[in-house]
Amino acid sequence: MRADWTSFIAEDARALTASEIRDLLKVAERPEVISFAGGVPDATLFPLSEFRAVYAELMADEAAGRSALQYSISEGLPDLRSWIADDMAGDGAKRSIDNILITNGAQQGLDLLARLLLSPGTQLIVEKPSYLGAMQAFACRSPAYVGVGMDAEGPLLAEMEAAFQGGARLAYLQPDFQNPTGLRYSLQRRRDVLALAQRYGALLIEDAAYCKLSYDGAALPSLLALDGEGADSADAGTVIQLGTFSKTLVPAMRIGWLTAPRPLIDRMVLMMQASNLHVSTVNQAVALRAAKKAFPGHLGTVRRVYRAKRDAMVSALTDFMPGNVTFTRPEGGMYVWLTLPEGFDARALLEQALEAEKVAFVPGQAFFCDKSGTNTCRLSFSAGSPERIRDGIERLANLIRRVHNQVGEAA
Amino acid sequence: MRADWTSFIAEDARALTASEIRDLLKVAERPEVISFAGGVPDATLFPLSEFRAVYAELMADEAAGRSALQYSISEGLPDLRSWIADDMAGDGAKRSIDNILITNGAQQGLDLLARLLLSPGTQLIVEKPSYLGAMQAFACRSPAYVGVGMDAEGPLLAEMEAAFQGGARLAYLQPDFQNPTGLRYSLQRRRDVLALAQRYGALLIEDAAYCKLSYDGAALPSLLALDGEGADSADAGTVIQLGTFSKTLVPAMRIGWLTAPRPLIDRMVLMMQASNLHVSTVNQAVALRAAKKAFPGHLGTVRRVYRAKRDAMVSALTDFMPGNVTFTRPEGGMYVWLTLPEGFDARALLEQALEAEKVAFVPGQAFFCDKSGTNTCRLSFSAGSPERIRDGIERLANLIRRVHNQVGEAA
Repeated sequence: MRADWTSFIAEDARALTASEIRDLLKVAERPEVISFAGGVPDATLFPLSEFRAVYAELMADEAAGRSALQYSISEGLPDLRSWIADDMAGDGAKRSIDNILITNGAQQGLDLLARLLLSPGTQLIVEKPSYLGAMQAFACRSPAYVGVGMDAEGPLLAEMEAAFQGGARLAYLQPDFQNPTGLRYSLQRRRDVLALAQRYGALLIEDAAYCKLSYDGAALPSLLALDGEGADSADAGTVIQLGTFSKTLVPAMRIGWLTAPRPLIDRMVLMMQASNLHVSTVNQAVALRAAKKAFPGHLGTVRRVYRAKRDAMVSALTDFMPGNVTFTRPEGGMYVWLTLPEGFDARALLEQALEAEKVAFVPGQAFFCDKSGTNTCRLSFSAGSPERIRDGIERLANLIRRVHNQVGEAA
Repeated sequence: MRADWTSFIAEDARALTASEIRDLLKVAERPEVISFAGGVPDATLFPLSEFRAVYAELMADEAAGRSALQYSISEGLPDLRSWIADDMAGDGAKRSIDNILITNGAQQGLDLLARLLLSPGTQLIVEKPSYLGAMQAFACRSPAYVGVGMDAEGPLLAEMEAAFQGGARLAYLQPDFQNPTGLRYSLQRRRDVLALAQRYGALLIEDAAYCKLSYDGAALPSLLALDGEGADSADAGTVIQLGTFSKTLVPAMRIGWLTAPRPLIDRMVLMMQASNLHVSTVNQAVALRAAKKAFPGHLGTVRRVYRAKRDAMVSALTDFMPGNVTFTRPEGGMYVWLTLPEGFDARALLEQALEAEKVAFVPGQAFFCDKSGTNTCRLSFSAGSPERIRDGIERLANLIRRVHNQVGEAA
C-alpha cells in the first residue's frame, strides 16, 4: 500500500493559498514586460563594493571568520542588536538589546507574532488595504480580521474605536509608507491611534519596514517612539515593532528584527530555536559591518534614487491618466496606489495590460481582508528607471482609456 | 491602561519550554569546562580558505554578486537543488529538483513538516530516545507520541507494527548515527521498517543530518534510496528526507533541504513564503560554490578528524568507566550514549560533574518522549581534542565511581 500524500496534510495547512503577487512575478519577469508588480529593491543600489570589502575582511580574520561560520545564539548577535538599539534610540525609541530579536527578515517576525499571539478566531485589526504578506503569515492561525478604513492621515479613529469596543485587542499597522498604498500616518493620527490602544489595553504591531525610505521632509516619530514617551520601562508598553535591512541594505541576507517586551521576546526565542535555531551567523556579522560602513551615506543614495523614480511615476500618472483615475502621492516607500472608476475590474485590466501593453501591476483586491477594492491597483516604482516608469504608465493609461471607452459604449 | 503582555500569548504557544541543552550550553561555554554537551561541529574543520575564495569570486562578479544580494524564489536556487539532486542520486536516491525545497537548516524542515502534517493529537512514532530538537519543532502542534524502543539494529519491529496497528501513520526516524545515541540501523532493519510502513500506508520522515559522517566501512542506503527501488515515480513513495550542510560544511549558512513528493513540496513552498520568503540567496550561492570546491576532499578530512575523536572517547570510556556503565560504539556521527546503572540520576550527576569535575554532558531524559531514561547521558565528541576528550572521560568516570560508592554505602 502506497501513502496518499495529500491525505496527510493537516486541516489548517490547507488554508494557505498561492499568492497573487508570486504568480504574477513569474509572468512579469520577462524582459519585455515593464513591471510595477514586485516590491523588489533596485539591485543597482546594493552597496556591492562595501559587501566585497566586508566579506574579505571577515574571512581574512581567522577567529572572526570561523566564529561567523559557527552556530550562534537564537536571540541574534549581541553586537548587531546593539547597533539596532542605537539606531532606534536615534529615532527616539530607547530599548535594551534584550528587547530585540533578530529574525529571518521582517517576514519571520510576522510569522513568530502570528504563532505567539493569534489563535483561530482571534480578532485582529488590519488596515484596509493592508500588507498581503502579513496576512499570509497570519493565515496559519486563521484570525478574524477587523478591517479599518483609511483616510489620507491614517486609520479612521471611529472605526478603530468600534473595533476595540467589539473586543479586538491586537492591530497590525504600517504607519510609514504603507505597502500597498504608500501612505503615511500624520503625527496627530499616530498619537490618537496610540492613545486609543492604550485606553483599551490593546497591542499594536508596527511594521516599520519602509520607515527609512522617506523622500520629503523630516521623518515622523514611530508608534514605538511615541509609546516610549510615557513608558516607565521597556517591558511595559503598547507597541511591538518590526524592522528589516531588506529595503535599506539588501534583501538576500534575510535580516530583520523585532522589538518587544521581554516576556514576549523570551517566548519567541524559544520559538526561533525550535523553528530554525537562529538567523545565519555570517549574515548577521556581515550585515552589521556593511551597515556600519555604508550608512548613512548609502541611505542618502537610496532616497535620492527612489525619490526620482517616485517623481517619474507621479508625474506620468498626472500627465497620462484620465481624470476619473485617482492615485496616491507617497512621501516615501516603494508604492503608488491607483483607484480606477467604480465598476472597473483591476484583475481583468491586468490580463489585458500584460497581453496588449506588456505592463504588470498587482490588482488591489488581495490587500483587502474583506476582498473589496476590486477597482484598485498597486504600482511599485522601485525597480525600473524613470524613463521606463514613464513609458509603462503611459501604456497603462492608454489601455485604461480604451477599456473605459468600451465600458462606456457597452453601457 | 497598559497591556498585560503575557495575557496575549496564545494557549499553544505556552506549551514550549526552555531547552535543557540550551541552558546547559551557557554553563558549559566557560573555558575551564570540558564540554561533551553541545552537538557543535569543530570550527577548526571549517574550510575557511575555500569560503574566503568563494566570497571573493562571487562579490567580484558584478552580475552574480548583485543577484546573490537580491530576493530569490521560495523553493531555493535551482543550481543548488540540482547539486543536491546529483549528490542524492550518487547515494542511490533519484529525485527531481522539483522534489527538493531549500530550508533554513534541517531544523526548519522539521518545523515545516510539523505545520504541514501534524495537528493536535496526531499520532507520531519516534525512537526512544529521539532527537530533542525535532520534538521541540513538533511541540507547536502537540502530537501524541508513540515511542518505539531500539536495539543495536534499529527500532523494534514488533513495537513499530503495534504503533501502526494502533493507528499511527507517521514516523520520525534517524537511521544514520542518531542524535543522541550514535547508532545506525542495519540494512535489514531499514528494509523491514520500510516494508512495514508501506504495508500500512504510513509516511517515514528520515532525518539524514549525520549520514555523511560515516567512519567505519561503507555507507548504507538511506530509506529514501531503498524506497526508490520500488517506486515508479518520485511523487509516490513512503519517505520524506531531511538533509543539511551544518554537519559537513558549516552550520552558520543555515542551509538545509527537504526531499518530498511534489504535492507536499508545493504546499511547503507556500509556507516558506509566508514564514520567511526564502533562505538567504547569498548563502545558497556560497554554500553551493563551497561544496563544489571543497567536497569530497573536505569530507575526507572531517571523517578522519571525527574518527580520531570518536576513537579517543570510546577508548577512554573502555579504560576508565566502571563495568556497570554501558555505552555505544558509534560508527559515525557525533555522539556516544552512556547508560548508568539503574537508580542513577544523570541530571544530579551533571550538577556534580560541572561543580566537582568541570565536565558537561546532556542528561538523556530529555530525549525520551515518555521522559524515561533518567540514568542515561549523551556525550558529544565533536568539539574537543582527543587529549581533552580522554581527560574529560577520566574525570567523569572518577566521579561516577565516587557517586556509585556513596550510593552503595547509603544502601
